Amino acid sequence: MNEVFEGRNVLITGGLGFIGSNLAHRLVELGAHMTLVDSLIPEYGGNLFNIAGIEGRVKVNISDVRDQHSMRYLVQGQDYLFNLAGQTSHLDSMQDPNVDLDINCRSQLSILEVCRKYNPGIKVIFASTRQIYGKPEYLPVDENHAVRPVDVNGINKMAGEWYHILYNNVYNIRGCALRLTNTIGPRMRVKDARQTFLGIWVRLLLEGKPFEVWGGEQLRDFTYVDDAVEAFLLAAASDKSNGQIFNLGGDCVISLKELADLLVKVNCGGEYSTHSYPADRKRIDIGDYYADFSRIRSALAWEPKVPLPEALGRTVAYYRQHHDHYWDN
Amino acid sequence: MNEVFEGRNVLITGGLGFIGSNLAHRLVELGAHMTLVDSLIPEYGGNLFNIAGIEGRVKVNISDVRDQHSMRYLVQGQDYLFNLAGQTSHLDSMQDPNVDLDINCRSQLSILEVCRKYNPGIKVIFASTRQIYGKPEYLPVDENHAVRPVDVNGINKMAGEWYHILYNNVYNIRGCALRLTNTIGPRMRVKDARQTFLGIWVRLLLEGKPFEVWGGEQLRDFTYVDDAVEAFLLAAASDKSNGQIFNLGGDCVISLKELADLLVKVNCGGEYSTHSYPADRKRIDIGDYYADFSRIRSALAWEPKVPLPEALGRTVAYYRQHHDHYWDN
Repeated sequence: MNEVFEGRNVLITGGLGFIGSNLAHRLVELGAHMTLVDSLIPEYGGNLFNIAGIEGRVKVNISDVRDQHSMRYLVQGQDYLFNLAGQTSHLDSMQDPNVDLDINCRSQLSILEVCRKYNPGIKVIFASTRQIYGKPEYLPVDENHAVRPVDVNGINKMAGEWYHILYNNVYNIRGCALRLTNTIGPRMRVKDARQTFLGIWVRLLLEGKPFEVWGGEQLRDFTYVDDAVEAFLLAAASDKSNGQIFNLGGDCVISLKELADLLVKVNCGGEYSTHSYPADRKRIDIGDYYADFSRIRSALAWEPKVPLPEALGRTVAYYRQHHDHYWDN
Repeated sequence: MNEVFEGRNVLITGGLGFIGSNLAHRLVELGAHMTLVDSLIPEYGGNLFNIAGIEGRVKVNISDVRDQHSMRYLVQGQDYLFNLAGQTSHLDSMQDPNVDLDINCRSQLSILEVCRKYNPGIKVIFASTRQIYGKPEYLPVDENHAVRPVDVNGINKMAGEWYHILYNNVYNIRGCALRLTNTIGPRMRVKDARQTFLGIWVRLLLEGKPFEVWGGEQLRDFTYVDDAVEAFLLAAASDKSNGQIFNLGGDCVISLKELADLLVKVNCGGEYSTHSYPADRKRIDIGDYYADFSRIRSALAWEPKVPLPEALGRTVAYYRQHHDHYWDN
């Protein structure tokens, strides 16, 4: 990896967010010249503390991917673009579908147009989502599973993903997409449930308050963020990924209730209550989901390395130490 | 059909275009109160002559589906919306992807939002396209075929289609989508090849000039516009269509070269030349395509009734009579 990234210019959209900032930490270690773009919209995942320790070794550019002018400038001269900025809330996408469309469709298309016109040699790795599969028809879900999004966010992310594949196929702007499942770890948004339900679980646990499990029987898989970062780097480094779509996944499948029990165990204490699923979420719920990630294992030799208990342990430890940077008491 | 549409309020976007105007003629016969929205953008399919004979029995509203304000007003009080306005040029979508996105994604989402807020009882029938399948993996192509669009237009139409299905499923805004194949007949744009290659064939044939066949071996199916109109009406009339996607198709499969021969025969004369496929089109070409339309045959008892030779004959006869309204000599 050092050989691939040392001295190379790398741009991350959403670079102050959860996965983007973890990627930045790793790429700084690898000797890349980093530029991080982030809009720092308070409701999204960006947080300046996420780059604590590497502030002096990255360029931070506060701008929004909807700002075509800044993107046009920033994309130039870059060897790699990790394209992670996105609107991720399913409920928000239903309440304000135009904002979701602007960020997840329009901006993706305009970023790719900028690459085509001003930097066609760039390689782009797009953060897609399992959400576009909708309610699984079979498990585990592989990349050949039909895409049947159940919310506006899923439709727009699907389009955003396809623009990347299209620009690879038609214009040779090398690109690929990783369909992420639930990703967890340090630097995720935990002040509320806007990024992941696990965020608010961790916060309430550390505040000594009971957290809420909605449903509980749903099966899920989880990727620890360091493993997700490794997948992004492997996808960037290899031409085998060009034009491809890869699922990420986890080392185990677990129900939400089992996850809650595990989290309490890892924390050596804590409480939760179970509730039936709220109506506004139920209509866009997807039931059980877990991924078949054998395609990326075959093509890029990726597999998850951090077991779930350790992932939860590291996560809880991080927020126990740094909680004052993630929520106000 | 009279029982369904007589006295009902019906809005058609793209109502001065090819399929929209044919639908308007039929709905006027059926006694519906018609409003036709069209932007009359010169490069698109709208033509005021398309409503010759029914001008006094329809309301024409010149506005663009991107104009959310006019759509908000016009949707109110309607029983049915035939949502046909679209950017249809594959090449244009690659040259100006943002315009395609605005029309085929953003406007669709905003029309559906307007329906949700101001007229949730409306039924919406969306004109989708076979283009979203991309290069077929098997033939004939049924609705379960993977969608793998090969151009920006295909991606955006796919998103537009999915918004309709989503709003049906989540908000009960009854909606469905028809995936059209090549539709032909009177009132299509023939001055150039912007709407369909058959348009410019017909024009050149009637001008006594040779037309160009690119490739020639590609297999295609064709729907005569009256059959397409019938499918839209059946889809509107039945709740069996809600949330569904249906392919349209044709009664025969034919190569482009055979089609050229048939057109010359129907016209009792004419010439064409064959050419290899131009590079800028080849990269977004889909090869052979023809549809399996058994789903709509089962659900709505639709099937094509006008055989291809008759479809071509009626088309040529129409433009022989009315060519001065479709191109300048």
